[in-house]
Amino acid sequence: MVGTLYGLGIGPGDPDLITLKALKILQAAPVIAYPAPENQDSLARSIVAGHLLGEQKEIVIETPMVPGRYPANDVYDKYSAEIAKELDAGRDVAVLCEGDPFFFGSFMYIYGRLVNEYKTVVVPGVSSAMASCCQIGMPITSRYDVLTVLPAPIPSEELLSRLQVCDAAIVMKVGRHFTKVRDVLGALGLIENAYYIEHATMENQVMMPLSEATFDKAPYFSMIIVHKRAEAWK
Amino acid sequence: MVGTLYGLGIGPGDPDLITLKALKILQAAPVIAYPAPENQDSLARSIVAGHLLGEQKEIVIETPMVPGRYPANDVYDKYSAEIAKELDAGRDVAVLCEGDPFFFGSFMYIYGRLVNEYKTVVVPGVSSAMASCCQIGMPITSRYDVLTVLPAPIPSEELLSRLQVCDAAIVMKVGRHFTKVRDVLGALGLIENAYYIEHATMENQVMMPLSEATFDKAPYFSMIIVHKRAEAWK
Repeated sequence: MVGTLYGLGIGPGDPDLITLKALKILQAAPVIAYPAPENQDSLARSIVAGHLLGEQKEIVIETPMVPGRYPANDVYDKYSAEIAKELDAGRDVAVLCEGDPFFFGSFMYIYGRLVNEYKTVVVPGVSSAMASCCQIGMPITSRYDVLTVLPAPIPSEELLSRLQVCDAAIVMKVGRHFTKVRDVLGALGLIENAYYIEHATMENQVMMPLSEATFDKAPYFSMIIVHKRAEAWK
Repeated sequence: MVGTLYGLGIGPGDPDLITLKALKILQAAPVIAYPAPENQDSLARSIVAGHLLGEQKEIVIETPMVPGRYPANDVYDKYSAEIAKELDAGRDVAVLCEGDPFFFGSFMYIYGRLVNEYKTVVVPGVSSAMASCCQIGMPITSRYDVLTVLPAPIPSEELLSRLQVCDAAIVMKVGRHFTKVRDVLGALGLIENAYYIEHATMENQVMMPLSEATFDKAPYFSMIIVHKRAEAWK
């Protein structure tokens, strides 16, 4: 019997924001795998640490983090092969993904390499984008609102043109692009409609109206959320 | 002591896709409330039915469903007042929301009426949009992808212009707008990149490539998902 590959969305950070489905698979799988920056702890593992029963093999998917560059394909080739070996030996492997596996999750690179060969189940999770809106208290889409999700690293002209044609936007991965995003929102007169949040639902969560965010850089796990019609949902 | 108002994301339909956090609040709250169309069963209640312990007061938020029209404000005025009475009597009230409370969820109308008066906690949930991508097996955003969420009822010219400027799109509430959305995707040459799904993660889930969806109308809880670069995530 060949094992099953699971992609588990484990939610945005609060350990209680994992789903029952992901929790059951997490605790039953003989092997778990999770990403970690080279020589650093894994955020994904830390989120589920309190749920682990302690008898599983763990595969650390070590990914070099270079700002502005994505890990080379050979990283995912290597770890996909390692996971495939477990599956071939009949062991299920659960790959942990912060948030949702298919929403900017690195699991998709493992998935792309193994889905045609192995039985694969992807368990959706609460994304940090949705969680951030709830933490801030900003309903993000009502009725016929158009929502756009923008990665902050795209050029400022592109951010601007795309922000012009939506009702609401979630700007992800703000990090070192913070001032660029704030400037674009300023040019559009949207500062008063925007909120900043970092580490949503984690113990070190910080959030504030963008008008009060006077710093110049932000951590990688930060977001800016904007709705053009303030309190459109009332 | 005044009670706390909870907005609980209960996930897209599979009862196991509720979070631990929502489950704990659901089972502890003395009062739950949930939307239901007039004289019909509540989908939200049916999703959590197996988790209920059976000793809670239940408030049915009866909402007349007229295609193309939203319930009049007085519906939410009435039920907000009813919920406020429970809160004033010191009882917590958990309002159930399919998917995520702030992502096209009707909870936001209750929220808008009560948030300034009562302690309110909003618990994010797995949205049907994210769950649909996982069910189909289509990673929706990787690297610097721009994702747009479009409600199908908007005019076809607007659907077209917004689909032109994104990498991936999730078209929600397809229902009776199915042929319009399919025609727009056809005009953009995107039929082969699109998937159709209804009742994602529920027992009656149906999904298929859009090219095989030869019918002319779809249920309200249906979606079309498209990514312009097929297998961009490989």
